[in-house]
Amino acid sequence: MPATPAPPVRGGPREVAPPPALDRCRALVEPALREAVAELHPWPRHMASFAFGWCDADGRPGSAHGGKGVRQALAVLGAEAAGAPGETAVPGAVAVELVHTFSLVHDDIMDDDERRRHRDSAWKAFGTGPAVLAGDALFALAVRTLARAGGEHGGAAVALLAEALSELVHGQADDLLFESRPWTGPGAVGLTAYRDMALRKTGSLLGCAAALGPVLAGASPAVVTALAEAGRRLGSAFQAVDDLLGIWGDPTATGKPVHGDLRRGKKTLPLLAAVTSGTAAGRELAGLLGSGAPLDAGTARHAALLTEEAGGREYTLAEARRHVAAAHTSLHAVRLAPHAASELVTLAEYLVERHL
Amino acid sequence: MPATPAPPVRGGPREVAPPPALDRCRALVEPALREAVAELHPWPRHMASFAFGWCDADGRPGSAHGGKGVRQALAVLGAEAAGAPGETAVPGAVAVELVHTFSLVHDDIMDDDERRRHRDSAWKAFGTGPAVLAGDALFALAVRTLARAGGEHGGAAVALLAEALSELVHGQADDLLFESRPWTGPGAVGLTAYRDMALRKTGSLLGCAAALGPVLAGASPAVVTALAEAGRRLGSAFQAVDDLLGIWGDPTATGKPVHGDLRRGKKTLPLLAAVTSGTAAGRELAGLLGSGAPLDAGTARHAALLTEEAGGREYTLAEARRHVAAAHTSLHAVRLAPHAASELVTLAEYLVERHL
Repeated sequence: MPATPAPPVRGGPREVAPPPALDRCRALVEPALREAVAELHPWPRHMASFAFGWCDADGRPGSAHGGKGVRQALAVLGAEAAGAPGETAVPGAVAVELVHTFSLVHDDIMDDDERRRHRDSAWKAFGTGPAVLAGDALFALAVRTLARAGGEHGGAAVALLAEALSELVHGQADDLLFESRPWTGPGAVGLTAYRDMALRKTGSLLGCAAALGPVLAGASPAVVTALAEAGRRLGSAFQAVDDLLGIWGDPTATGKPVHGDLRRGKKTLPLLAAVTSGTAAGRELAGLLGSGAPLDAGTARHAALLTEEAGGREYTLAEARRHVAAAHTSLHAVRLAPHAASELVTLAEYLVERHL
Repeated sequence: MPATPAPPVRGGPREVAPPPALDRCRALVEPALREAVAELHPWPRHMASFAFGWCDADGRPGSAHGGKGVRQALAVLGAEAAGAPGETAVPGAVAVELVHTFSLVHDDIMDDDERRRHRDSAWKAFGTGPAVLAGDALFALAVRTLARAGGEHGGAAVALLAEALSELVHGQADDLLFESRPWTGPGAVGLTAYRDMALRKTGSLLGCAAALGPVLAGASPAVVTALAEAGRRLGSAFQAVDDLLGIWGDPTATGKPVHGDLRRGKKTLPLLAAVTSGTAAGRELAGLLGSGAPLDAGTARHAALLTEEAGGREYTLAEARRHVAAAHTSLHAVRLAPHAASELVTLAEYLVERHL
């Protein structure tokens, strides 16, 4: 598989069609995912089904936007890249989707986020206590699903998931703490600290997803390591793009308020890159954000322009593409089944180019 | 080991000294537990240390009441009963204590409980979002601790923990739903439904604790099954006694408000037994509780008397003792190391007789 150079930065928004692998992997995994969720107590089952976008808050089957299913696709493609049938990865794919949804449900409580995928977040729809319960149920179900899958490599798979879970929570703790740290001066959140957080919060589960398939398939340590690294890099890229969408994303596509992250002064990569850019625009932006008060719509619009002028947007996009290039390099370092490897590359590019 | 008949119901409160096995097992497990918690991100680590009673909310090392450490003791005694050194059980003991503390932290959020062990509950001390985070961190750490312990029987141990986690969450869901169900008439919570809930919410983790030691020691399925059953029975007994303490417990011993469960109309075994007793006192009690409004101090005192008069207190104590007798029978059915088995019996009796 040839290493693909990162594409150049383009201007202007465009839509990129999701790669067919997402639908193919969803078709393979979703029946098992629904089967697992069906085993839950009816109450958390209902809330989980809502969180997956399978029904509305009243339980009516809905056409709500579910997630993209990136994690389940990584698991399946990882197994296939290691030369195993995609089915091998299904318990791992189910587990990572359950963990992902657990983390969304609980993070929305911690972040006080009222909206998720064009709807109320779970705590907003059902109350905080019930949403805590739903997240716990998903978490427990994820571990149980993988533990039950057992097999020769089940223990290694659960151990991998357990490490990712711990990293995920660690990353979430950092992310929450960043909110009360200053933008500049002593105690400011630096770019390295931000990268470490993003790697933990997003990279760890994507790395786990990509590695679970090969682990369940009994692939060599070299293959497992290469896929884990590719998944982590993809996670970091994914987070960077999410940060861009949190400022410039089209609300009809993201399902979140326009300039949402910016208005509430969430520390994300474009803003951190801008305030540390040494530019006049960056200094003005730091002044606006430094008050700690939520920005009104007009100020947020101005802050977005300052961020762009200070290079925060371009910096973040370049970082995302650098991570994708590193993922390519990692995949290139071992012998993988060419079709699955190529699907992984297409998926990586899609994740960075979506909505940009 | 001879089967011990359940002791007769006694009147009046008394203190029972904790069996020395609790301290012995704590000394064996706590260093590993502290080592595991030390690996957490500093913020959830601080909140976890508070929840374990190792420090106050400001981080000062404190002499706060931690838990009794029943679960870690069951794990250690289970391994010893299976003929293995107690050390074998340590990763399992650490995992069950972490899971137990996770469940306290999250359950206090869901139940809106402001007090725990004579102090603020974690959400009251740190906020709801941070307490969700702390619980998640403990949960992930529990799974990771056991997964890392690995060894020949690590996979089976993690699978056992995963089943218990799922049962625990299921039981908590039932318990929460019981609150909005009526005391009498259609949809009323029956004694069987209550028992199923208690078995899941408390029995599953105690059963898991007692079985983890033998599983990690590679004991025979018969020994694992016997200890799991004894642990589950002990859990059901423990929950029944907790229900008694929730009404008649001395607040200086329980760390919770006097008549706490009664005042907020929590559906517990003494009350359910009383309202279904067919007695005049039971009917009067159902009338008091049926309004759904919190009871004032005087009404709660009267309701406690009615519960006793309707036989709810005696019924619950008899149920606890029946479970302990069943635990004895289960332990008696297999060949166990006599000293550890006898310590298990002493522990079981203590758990039922404490503060009664």
